[in-house]
Amino acid sequence: MSEVRRDIVTDTWVIVETERDPAPDRGERAVRRPPACPFCAGNEAMTPPEIAAVRDRGGPDAPGWRVRVVPDRHPVLRIEGRLERVGVGIHDMVTGVGANEVVVEAPDHETSFAALKPGQVELILRTWRERLADLYRDQRFRYVIIFKDHGTMAGGTMIEHVHSQIIALPATPRRIKDQLAGARNYFEYKERCIFCDILQDELRSRDRVVVEGERFAVFTPYASRLPFELRVMPKRHRFSYAEAADEELAELAHTLPSVMAALDRALDAPPFNLVLHTAPNLLPQKGYWQTVRDDYHWFIEIIPRVRRTDGFEWGSGFFINPVPPERAAARLREVL
Amino acid sequence: MSEVRRDIVTDTWVIVETERDPAPDRGERAVRRPPACPFCAGNEAMTPPEIAAVRDRGGPDAPGWRVRVVPDRHPVLRIEGRLERVGVGIHDMVTGVGANEVVVEAPDHETSFAALKPGQVELILRTWRERLADLYRDQRFRYVIIFKDHGTMAGGTMIEHVHSQIIALPATPRRIKDQLAGARNYFEYKERCIFCDILQDELRSRDRVVVEGERFAVFTPYASRLPFELRVMPKRHRFSYAEAADEELAELAHTLPSVMAALDRALDAPPFNLVLHTAPNLLPQKGYWQTVRDDYHWFIEIIPRVRRTDGFEWGSGFFINPVPPERAAARLREVL
Repeated sequence: MSEVRRDIVTDTWVIVETERDPAPDRGERAVRRPPACPFCAGNEAMTPPEIAAVRDRGGPDAPGWRVRVVPDRHPVLRIEGRLERVGVGIHDMVTGVGANEVVVEAPDHETSFAALKPGQVELILRTWRERLADLYRDQRFRYVIIFKDHGTMAGGTMIEHVHSQIIALPATPRRIKDQLAGARNYFEYKERCIFCDILQDELRSRDRVVVEGERFAVFTPYASRLPFELRVMPKRHRFSYAEAADEELAELAHTLPSVMAALDRALDAPPFNLVLHTAPNLLPQKGYWQTVRDDYHWFIEIIPRVRRTDGFEWGSGFFINPVPPERAAARLREVL
Repeated sequence: MSEVRRDIVTDTWVIVETERDPAPDRGERAVRRPPACPFCAGNEAMTPPEIAAVRDRGGPDAPGWRVRVVPDRHPVLRIEGRLERVGVGIHDMVTGVGANEVVVEAPDHETSFAALKPGQVELILRTWRERLADLYRDQRFRYVIIFKDHGTMAGGTMIEHVHSQIIALPATPRRIKDQLAGARNYFEYKERCIFCDILQDELRSRDRVVVEGERFAVFTPYASRLPFELRVMPKRHRFSYAEAADEELAELAHTLPSVMAALDRALDAPPFNLVLHTAPNLLPQKGYWQTVRDDYHWFIEIIPRVRRTDGFEWGSGFFINPVPPERAAARLREVL
C-alpha cells in the first residue's frame, strides 16, 4: 500500500509509492508501450474487469460499449483497507486508500479528444458525473480528481487511445484548499460566490472571453500561470460537478471539443492537461464544509504544456507567463 | 513594463509579460543559442554592465573576475519605476517593478556546478548573500528568489555556462507564504521553529539523511514531491540567508558540489533546479512579519527533474512520488 504523506509546513500531500520495484531507478514511471492497445474494443481482456460502461449491446468486458471505466492496472492507491491516520515522528501519514480508474473515451483507436463527436463527449461527461457521485458515497474519500493528460510532455503515458483518469483521494489537495479558503473569505465579506463574480467581470470586459454559450463561458484567467490556460465555467452557480444538469452537459459536449480544436489550431496540437475542479466530498466533513455549497463553483481547467516550468516557479509558486491571457483569448477567438 | 497579477481566489502571483513581441506564439521564451558564450571571460561586452563582481584584477566589465553579476538581458521585471497597486475590475495588479540578475559562476566555460572547486563555490555563495542583502535594502521588494536551472528540461536556457539567477519580486510568492503560515502556526503552539524540529527528527531517525556535517545536514524530505528531492539546511536556527556566517558558507561550499556530484552519479547527470528559500524582506512589513526571525529557517532545495508532472499534480497540488525518499537517501549515501 502507498503512503499518503503530508508536508507539515505547507500542508501539501504526496502519495509515496512505497511498494514499487525496489531497484534504484531514475524515477520515471513505467511507460512501456503495450504490444496491442488495451483500450480498443475487442481487447477488453487486457484490462482489469470493468467498473462501469455505457453500452449499446453486449455484457460486461465484451465489445458493444461506447465508454468504459476500468481500474488502473498500476493503481497508486488501493480501494481496499482502512483509512488510518498515523503519526510518523514529527510527520503525518494516511494509509494509501483511494481509487484509480481509467475512463476509456471511445471504443475505436481514436487519439484526439478534439475529434470526438458531441454525442460521444456527452456520454463521457455523464460518466464522469456518475463516477464522481458514486465515489463520494464512500466516506473515506475526501476528494475526487478527474483529469486528462494528453502527450508525454504533459505526463501522459504511452497509451495514446483517448482516455481520462479518476483518482479518489483520502485528503483534500492543497490547491483545492487554497481555492476553498479564498472563496470562503470572499463569501464572508460579500455574501457572493467569488467565481460567479469573476465570471461576471469577464463577461462584462470580454477581454479574455474565448466563447460564451447559453450555459457555459470559456475564458483565459486574468492571472493565467501558463500561456493559453483556459477555464470552462458553468454560468449558473453550481458547487459540484455531481449536480451538473443534463442540459448543461449537452452544451458542454459541444463547447469542449470545439475549444480543444481551437487550441490544436492555434498551438499546433499541443500536449495538454485537462482538470475538473469540483467541491470536496461533503459527506464526512459536514461541519467544516457547510458553506461550500454557497461559495465554491466547479470548472474545467485546460492547460496546454507549451513551456517548461523552471526553478523559479517550482521553488516559489510564482509564475512567469510570456503570453498575456488577453492575447491568447484573441488568438483563440480568431481560429474558432 | 510587465504586470504582476494576483489570482484573487488562491492568492497566487503571476508575472505577465505584456511587452513582448505581439505576434501570437507558442509561448516558448527565446532560447536561441548566441554565437559566442556571453558569460565567458573576455566577452564581457556581450552582457549589460556588471552590477557586482569578485575579481583578482582588472576593472568593471573587463577580465580578471572570478564571479560576475550582470542584469538579465531580457528582464521580466524593471528596476526603475514606482511600485503601484492597481485594481483591474475585480482583480489585483502590481506594476512590474523588480530586479532580474544573473550570477556568472565561473570565468571559464564550465557547464557543471558539481565540477566547481569549493573555493569557487564559496565565492558564489558569498555573492548570493551580498546580492540578497543589497536588494532587501530596496523597500519595494518583498522577496528575493535565488535559483539555478540546469538543463532545458528544468527550464534552463541555451546558455550552458554555469550561472544562477536572482529575481527580486514586489510580492511574496505563494509557496513561501504557505511555509511562513505553517511555521507561524507551529511556533504559536510549540514556541519552537518547525524546521529545527524537522531537522532534529531527521537526524534522530537518519532514514532520510544523505550527509551530516558540523553546520549543515542534507536530507530527502519526508513528503518529497519529486524523486530525489533534497534539502540542504543549516543546523543552527537562521531565518535568513543574508545572515549566514562565513564559516557556514565555507562548509556549504564543500557540501553542495559533493551532493550535486552524488546526484550526477545516481541519476546520470539529471537536469535539476536549485532554489534558495529564505525569509521575505522584513523592512517594509515590520508588523506582519515580526516573528519571522523566530519561526522561519532558510534552506536550499534541489529538485532533479527526472519525471514530468501531470495534470493531476498541476491541477491539484497533490503529488505522486514513485521513489520513497528513504530509498533515494540510501542510494545517495551509497554513491557519496
